[in-house]
Amino acid sequence: MQTITATDVYAEDLTPGLVLELGSHTMTEAEIVDFASQWDPQFFHTDPERAACEGQLGGLIASGLHTLSVYQRLSILARTEFWHVIGGAGLRDVRFRRAVRPGDVLTGRSVVEELTLEPERQRGLAAFAGELTNQHGKPVLQLVMSAYLVSRPA
Amino acid sequence: MQTITATDVYAEDLTPGLVLELGSHTMTEAEIVDFASQWDPQFFHTDPERAACEGQLGGLIASGLHTLSVYQRLSILARTEFWHVIGGAGLRDVRFRRAVRPGDVLTGRSVVEELTLEPERQRGLAAFAGELTNQHGKPVLQLVMSAYLVSRPA
Repeated sequence: MQTITATDVYAEDLTPGLVLELGSHTMTEAEIVDFASQWDPQFFHTDPERAACEGQLGGLIASGLHTLSVYQRLSILARTEFWHVIGGAGLRDVRFRRAVRPGDVLTGRSVVEELTLEPERQRGLAAFAGELTNQHGKPVLQLVMSAYLVSRPA
Repeated sequence: MQTITATDVYAEDLTPGLVLELGSHTMTEAEIVDFASQWDPQFFHTDPERAACEGQLGGLIASGLHTLSVYQRLSILARTEFWHVIGGAGLRDVRFRRAVRPGDVLTGRSVVEELTLEPERQRGLAAFAGELTNQHGKPVLQLVMSAYLVSRPA
């Protein structure tokens, strides 16, 4: 397995195949309700009682955006190096594979899928294939996230 | 232009071509910093002073996940009908087209792109092509979001 050995991470350090273990996050009912109350106010994300009675998936489930945000939080907190990020470029193939419920423990993993250097702009675009799995080892989220990083100075 | 006339929205009501105007949201520095501090803690999203000096994009910018969450919030709040949603399925082709900064006013629009009915499961999968534009009429976010809805009862 490849690991990062640099203390400053530039685009060139993100070689395809590099695996990043992102650690875990426990989903609480309070956090699920909080997130969704602000950003995705649908009753099956915000009202545990009504979700239990009327929800099509049997009880409160986390917003997909919340799950996606957990993935991003883990990605950033897992960095022990300083990453010279310019900004995010986009997301593709985001799949909410299973319902995420209070008490679920989500564990993240990311693999560098592709690196496209743009030497004339002193930057590179890295694509990461990411996944969150629950405490049963089942995937709940899969995605590809792309971000621009600064190129290593000559 | 097609509009929704039902008070209860089932999968069958989301015919391709249907346009949904989602209203607007003003981005504040406080909200940008708050969101990113929890979900995307990178200095160019959380630290205005450092972002101004060291940020590659010249000052504080919103997390892409924050912009995406604004889109979802507007989508839900724009509904005057009761939508029989089962849950989100995924996102594709999410593009962060331009930096979003404090003071930007984002306006949303969504068009039903595709509807795939699954009669044997009494549901349908609707895909929405969504966009947020800023106060200069320039796109900042483009995406396709898919969600399952209950089929209209016979």
